[in-house]
Amino acid sequence: MKDVVIFGSTGSVGRSALSVIAQNRKDFKVKGLSANRDIHTLKAQIEKFNPSYVCVCDEDFAKKIEPFVNGKVKLLKGEKGLEEFSSLESDISVMAISGISALKPLLMNIQYTKRVALANKESIVAAAPIIFSQANKFNTEIIPVDSEINAFFQLMQFKETADNEVFRKVYLTASGGALLGCKKEDFRKVTPKKVLNHPTWKMGERITVDSTTLVNKAFEVIETHFFFGIPYEDISIVLHKESFVHAFVEFQDNTLLACLYPPDMKMPIAHALYYPKRSQGKSNMNFSKAFSCSFAPLSLNSYPLLKLILAAAQKGDNSLVILNACDEVLVEAFLEKRIKFTDIFKIMRYMFNKYESNVINTLDDVFFWDLWARVKTRERIQKI
Amino acid sequence: MKDVVIFGSTGSVGRSALSVIAQNRKDFKVKGLSANRDIHTLKAQIEKFNPSYVCVCDEDFAKKIEPFVNGKVKLLKGEKGLEEFSSLESDISVMAISGISALKPLLMNIQYTKRVALANKESIVAAAPIIFSQANKFNTEIIPVDSEINAFFQLMQFKETADNEVFRKVYLTASGGALLGCKKEDFRKVTPKKVLNHPTWKMGERITVDSTTLVNKAFEVIETHFFFGIPYEDISIVLHKESFVHAFVEFQDNTLLACLYPPDMKMPIAHALYYPKRSQGKSNMNFSKAFSCSFAPLSLNSYPLLKLILAAAQKGDNSLVILNACDEVLVEAFLEKRIKFTDIFKIMRYMFNKYESNVINTLDDVFFWDLWARVKTRERIQKI
Repeated sequence: MKDVVIFGSTGSVGRSALSVIAQNRKDFKVKGLSANRDIHTLKAQIEKFNPSYVCVCDEDFAKKIEPFVNGKVKLLKGEKGLEEFSSLESDISVMAISGISALKPLLMNIQYTKRVALANKESIVAAAPIIFSQANKFNTEIIPVDSEINAFFQLMQFKETADNEVFRKVYLTASGGALLGCKKEDFRKVTPKKVLNHPTWKMGERITVDSTTLVNKAFEVIETHFFFGIPYEDISIVLHKESFVHAFVEFQDNTLLACLYPPDMKMPIAHALYYPKRSQGKSNMNFSKAFSCSFAPLSLNSYPLLKLILAAAQKGDNSLVILNACDEVLVEAFLEKRIKFTDIFKIMRYMFNKYESNVINTLDDVFFWDLWARVKTRERIQKI
Repeated sequence: MKDVVIFGSTGSVGRSALSVIAQNRKDFKVKGLSANRDIHTLKAQIEKFNPSYVCVCDEDFAKKIEPFVNGKVKLLKGEKGLEEFSSLESDISVMAISGISALKPLLMNIQYTKRVALANKESIVAAAPIIFSQANKFNTEIIPVDSEINAFFQLMQFKETADNEVFRKVYLTASGGALLGCKKEDFRKVTPKKVLNHPTWKMGERITVDSTTLVNKAFEVIETHFFFGIPYEDISIVLHKESFVHAFVEFQDNTLLACLYPPDMKMPIAHALYYPKRSQGKSNMNFSKAFSCSFAPLSLNSYPLLKLILAAAQKGDNSLVILNACDEVLVEAFLEKRIKFTDIFKIMRYMFNKYESNVINTLDDVFFWDLWARVKTRERIQKI
């Protein structure tokens, strides 16, 4: 029986994690749940999983849930509460807070848990060296939950993948998102509704927009680089609209090994919870009916934001912190219809051309440039 | 530099092995070549690879090549010559003789080589326990060259595949052969020409017919069972007409790992020659253009010969020796237009219903029942 704490339990990944745990009650005990504002979902989760600790990050919403949890669980409130929640001891923590706000609790939590099942990409994009050095210091495992990165993690259990001599490169798959096949001239008119209708994955709103611009895929390339130490030039992306194959590794003789499972976040979450064991799935699920998988080369020129972020990644400076913050602000503005879809790229490019290159050494550096980028991006939005 | 001897160098697999070696002259030296009757191809191979030993199994053809090789190489002739050829010391032998006639040289050769790259299926089907016990006794590696089995061999390098607790089952892929989609009522009229036109693989004649009846696939199931100790009930077949994915392993959580490469025998041969290293292929070959892979469940009832041989495999007696011999005789008769395509199944079923069950303990048992089956099958062909 393992103690699990879940950061961001009411979001898409948090809910998937809890449904994995609901099916495996004998193996996992939910010790703590954290949420931001979705009190309705959180109440239902408290009743179902009976955690010892609940953290509500928004103080106003925390007050609303107080009468409900009174006496039954320990309620932690606001930023201070999240800090306390992050220092709960656990066997496994699921880090499913979205955006850069996951970074501080993650770094704190690494000191108190044995394993982080990490679903948050932004923290890796902005601060991978700081995170991995912290994990190393406290001997904490970090297992990627992002499906492609989790698929690589699985393929890296293969003894040849550790052999630089025979291992050549890796391929991440990309569904291409909701706008695959959409003409360039129609991009200006693209609505949030259209973008949010992802063909294969059901996810949160920002990641769904990021899947369309392929900012999400750029982030996964960065994750692959930092998790497995693979040089950027050895990481490619392949279009695969069915999202069934998540990752390929290629040996120098051109043989490929692939990791496949249905596009359902419960699969990589269960893997991260059970590793090195595996959860017990229903039998006779695979190949019970006919299906096809298509693959196509991806042209970086068709995805200017992907190209931009990969160029930033090569710099190894503060540019990824800046572009991540910039993207978060821009996607929010797009979803609120304050800017057009095409403005996301325009402003990102503007920021990348204008930013001042600096080295990131500390957590304070990360937050300084993150805030700088948010302020500058909002200013730029005003000017449009 | 490794010494290689090739049994059956003029056949399809033998020629592929030599073209791998031709591209990697610095790593391999051809020590010996054996052929049966194709003197024309053999002469060209002798000139190109300059072996020290050449064996021609058919004595009449051996005489024909004698003036050509005179002095340059040691020529070994007939059955006695093959015995001497089998006892040549080598780092690697490629066993690409077709049919049950590979068995004797294989067992002899296991004593003198460090590794057998085994392309012959019939020897495994008829005498796996004898072969693996011999390999064990002489500490000789046997690496499967058959593409599906080689793909499993690659996937078995994965640490989880050794863990019975999480490893659930394996899937072999089948292209479905030249008659996929052909109506049952049209099977009687099928000609050798039609059957020999395999959509994806270019192979020898018997194996191409066996790919259509799926006798070949049944043999691969048996190989999978004996090479990796996987119970028959955990081995399934999936239709996959593009022949790009060769094998899947499935974990208990339903995650699949796959091994993929183009349908070209040079790939598994190079793997078997270089293992645990890998050959150097051209870069940027994979995903350079769009392609699709289709998968469909296979119904055993659509392939009665497959079903029949798998039923025989479960018996663990002399039935596989008998059905292998029977199939070899029947395919030859079909190719010579002495029987109809549908007679292959009819006579195989007859033999399976009539044979006397006996245990196979020794090589003599194998050859006794092999001969018995050939005589009985020929008698049966006469009666049609």
